Amino acid sequence: MLKPLGDRIVIELIEAEEKTSSGIVLPDSAKEKPQEGKVIAVGTGRVLENGQRVNLEVSEGDRIIFSKYAGTEVKYEGTEYLILRESDILATIG
Amino acid sequence: MLKPLGDRIVIELIEAEEKTSSGIVLPDSAKEKPQEGKVIAVGTGRVLENGQRVNLEVSEGDRIIFSKYAGTEVKYEGTEYLILRESDILATIG
Amino acid sequence: MLKPLGDRIVIELIEAEEKTSSGIVLPDSAKEKPQEGKVIAVGTGRVLENGQRVNLEVSEGDRIIFSKYAGTEVKYEGTEYLILRESDILATIG
Amino acid sequence: MLKPLGDRIVIELIEAEEKTSSGIVLPDSAKEKPQEGKVIAVGTGRVLENGQRVNLEVSEGDRIIFSKYAGTEVKYEGTEYLILRESDILATIG
Amino acid sequence: MLKPLGDRIVIELIEAEEKTSSGIVLPDSAKEKPQEGKVIAVGTGRVLENGQRVNLEVSEGDRIIFSKYAGTEVKYEGTEYLILRESDILATIG
Amino acid sequence: MLKPLGDRIVIELIEAEEKTSSGIVLPDSAKEKPQEGKVIAVGTGRVLENGQRVNLEVSEGDRIIFSKYAGTEVKYEGTEYLILRESDILATIG
Amino acid sequence: MLKPLGDRIVIELIEAEEKTSSGIVLPDSAKEKPQEGKVIAVGTGRVLENGQRVNLEVSEGDRIIFSKYAGTEVKYEGTEYLILRESDILATIG
Repeated sequence: MLKPLGDRIVIELIEAEEKTSSGIVLPDSAKEKPQEGKVIAVGTGRVLENGQRVNLEVSEGDRIIFSKYAGTEVKYEGTEYLILRESDILATIG
Repeated sequence: MLKPLGDRIVIELIEAEEKTSSGIVLPDSAKEKPQEGKVIAVGTGRVLENGQRVNLEVSEGDRIIFSKYAGTEVKYEGTEYLILRESDILATIG
Repeated sequence: MLKPLGDRIVIELIEAEEKTSSGIVLPDSAKEKPQEGKVIAVGTGRVLENGQRVNLEVSEGDRIIFSKYAGTEVKYEGTEYLILRESDILATIG
Repeated sequence: MLKPLGDRIVIELIEAEEKTSSGIVLPDSAKEKPQEGKVIAVGTGRVLENGQRVNLEVSEGDRIIFSKYAGTEVKYEGTEYLILRESDILATIG
Repeated sequence: MLKPLGDRIVIELIEAEEKTSSGIVLPDSAKEKPQEGKVIAVGTGRVLENGQRVNLEVSEGDRIIFSKYAGTEVKYEGTEYLILRESDILATIG
Repeated sequence: MLKPLGDRIVIELIEAEEKTSSGIVLPDSAKEKPQEGKVIAVGTGRVLENGQRVNLEVSEGDRIIFSKYAGTEVKYEGTEYLILRESDILATIG
Repeated sequence: MLKPLGDRIVIELIEAEEKTSSGIVLPDSAKEKPQEGKVIAVGTGRVLENGQRVNLEVSEGDRIIFSKYAGTEVKYEGTEYLILRESDILATIG
């Protein structure tokens, strides 16, 4: 299992075909192309200067839109994942 | 439904024709051209270092002026939206 | 009505002719030319990390000097305005 | 009257002749040339993250040395002034 | 023994062969290639502005994925180590 | 008298001859050459975000080593001084 | 005696021969080469925004690894020293 640190999340990409069924169509010409993913795991959140941790706004299973060039790809047990920071997420869907 | 995170908002663009009727005319030669939009959804606000969230100053339905090159375009269920940060909003109209 | 957000202000420019009458003459050769304006509307102020809002130091009707290339021009109901941040204001006059 | 905002100050430049009489001679070859001025007006000070304002260390009438390329020149009622931030002041003289 | 300072950690790299057995395969074409390592020692954590130290989220023995070009290589008593900051760690595995 | 502001200090340079007598020899090839000086006056210290001022660690009369290209030279009543920030000081000697 | 300020430390370099005996071998090809040193003196620590000083994690006599191009060389009473910030230290040894 991949367990992201701090304000990071692990997502699985949702391919364009799925996107169409969920109603999202992203313009090809957009310079910073957003993409859709499904949250697999979330970190414990970033630590504020008063020592408090901020829970992430997204949870396992959420569908999200994120900026295309954000994050780092990893392949784990045969599946490709993307590790993002919560600040790379634009919105949740649903 | 698109639900923006943190201090982000989802807006629908208001076309130039509508703008004229609302009284806003933006000069073509302006380098950083502002634009007009209608707020569709707002995030829960950013988190301060004391753990407190700051509610956004805009609400669903507000008409706003924002900087042209700000934000990311997404198409959801056949409609085009723009996802901005609250700091990209210059003013509300009305 | 334009209502600026946070620490932004909406001003009307005061033309050079008016400036002369008010006593301000700005050198043409200055690289970062300041200009004069009249405050039309002010935002609610920026939010500090302790959650407190800081009221702006300027109020509707104040005459101000600001840096020339600051802000974004908008035209609303036939009048041209400039939307600035309070930090772009150098001084008030009067 | 020019009233500077925040941690800004308005000064009148003190010409080189005066400088000699006050004992300050500045080397011509210095890359960041300091200069001398007299404080005409001071702002209310910057606001800390706890909401407190910090009074400026200089007062009306103080003679100061500041970095040459700092600030913005304005001409008001026939006199040239320079508007600086307090952080551009190196020292007071006297 | 190497004892890292603050929010730093000392890791041993896990070679590609081991990676395959643990199920991680990293794409060769990725620009910022992640890598796998085993935590050997952790620092005492960074100090917040309120004076509190934040314990690291990883412990000795954890397997981690980190960004390839992060950290500094050192060789100590015949073994090669990498010294990273906790912020260079993307996720733990297992 | 020159009275530096905030975390600034005024120093007199100590020439290379004196340096030898005090035991400091600085390599000519060093890119960021440190230098030696004597503290003439110190500011009241910088202001923290809680409103507290931090007294400088150096006092009038201290001998210090500082980075060569730091600070601004001024000539006052026939003597050359250098105005530095405390952060430009590397160490005290003695 | 050299007394470093704030979060600075004074170290003596430990030459490559000594390094071999202590077991550290650093690869020649490393771009940011770490090096080994012995702590001679430590500062009083940096000041947090709440006014508290943070004691350094290293003490006189500690052996440390630091990044090669960090710090400033000085020669004092015939011995060469390096003045670093604590953040330039990667780890202690022993």
